[in-house]
Amino acid sequence: MHVFIYLFFCCFFLLSHSLFFFFLTFSCLSHFLYRLLSMLKVCLGRMGRIIRIGDTAFTRRVISQEDVKAFGPLVGDNNPIHFDENAAKTAGFPSTVVYGMLAGSLFSGLLGSELPGPQSIYLSQTLRFVAPVLVGDEVEARVTVTQFKKSKFMIAFRTTVSRIDPETGKETLCIVGTSVGMNKTVTFEGESEWTVPRVE
Amino acid sequence: MHVFIYLFFCCFFLLSHSLFFFFLTFSCLSHFLYRLLSMLKVCLGRMGRIIRIGDTAFTRRVISQEDVKAFGPLVGDNNPIHFDENAAKTAGFPSTVVYGMLAGSLFSGLLGSELPGPQSIYLSQTLRFVAPVLVGDEVEARVTVTQFKKSKFMIAFRTTVSRIDPETGKETLCIVGTSVGMNKTVTFEGESEWTVPRVE
Repeated sequence: MHVFIYLFFCCFFLLSHSLFFFFLTFSCLSHFLYRLLSMLKVCLGRMGRIIRIGDTAFTRRVISQEDVKAFGPLVGDNNPIHFDENAAKTAGFPSTVVYGMLAGSLFSGLLGSELPGPQSIYLSQTLRFVAPVLVGDEVEARVTVTQFKKSKFMIAFRTTVSRIDPETGKETLCIVGTSVGMNKTVTFEGESEWTVPRVE
Repeated sequence: MHVFIYLFFCCFFLLSHSLFFFFLTFSCLSHFLYRLLSMLKVCLGRMGRIIRIGDTAFTRRVISQEDVKAFGPLVGDNNPIHFDENAAKTAGFPSTVVYGMLAGSLFSGLLGSELPGPQSIYLSQTLRFVAPVLVGDEVEARVTVTQFKKSKFMIAFRTTVSRIDPETGKETLCIVGTSVGMNKTVTFEGESEWTVPRVE
């Protein structure tokens, strides 16, 4: 009888210990894997994209009369050349004109979502309005890396908005300028000078 | 009898001639007055306002969450810090942030409607984003004449957007830059140098 009781306790002891160690190992392993995955996610998130001189991103869109009508009240600009065909013609334009600042704001979306992408901080933007963008025109907004400053994670872009001729596909430059952004998640490839003047 | 007929014709002749000359004079005078008034109107319309160094115009407004939500799709910028309270807090802001280009576009309305006013052509705008504008903040956008070039009807403005503290009324500079516009209807008073660099 004593032998059976002894064997029962031995079995119970072994089983409970193996179960305990099994759960302990499983718990440690899963915790370790979870931490490893979190670290990987953070590292991947922080790595961002690689930035090289000449990298470019663009978006094409047609700016509609509705877009223009929605923009005016947001910025308090009620110049009729933007929504009244006759006023636009009197002022010498073939049709209603897109607000320069609306077309120039397309860079904001490109910088924040494409190049350099999320977690970018917009530091400055310059805009020269070379030619008007007409309502209904297809436009291409483009940002191209021209310089970077590794120590400050700063990137300078040439920013352009061009009008695309619907028949010939020819591009006409409408807005030109420079944008400076900062993004601490990017990795720089190559070297660059930094001659971008501070906007005053 | 002949004397009466003679007198009658004399009277008729005199009366008709005086009436004819009266109407001729009246018609000439009214035509002349009409032309004079039209010319005056054109001249007054073309005269626009007088531009002096230091002239300033401003607008104050609260940029709401609705304004910000309407601006995003217009320019293709869907960064959640502009409409998601948690995303803004994770990124280190106390609350959702106004698009820099939305606040910077307030100058467009000021230049076109106040200073220099209607018939202005927007040539360039530079913007440096110094501090964030938060949704619900009252902001003051201000344009101040810094230089002009009489021969080309060009005017340079210092452009600023400041956040107004609702309790103390203290202003914090959020955006600073330079705007250049052209307006052929203005009259310049005084002299000015022109050292504004062309935006490239």
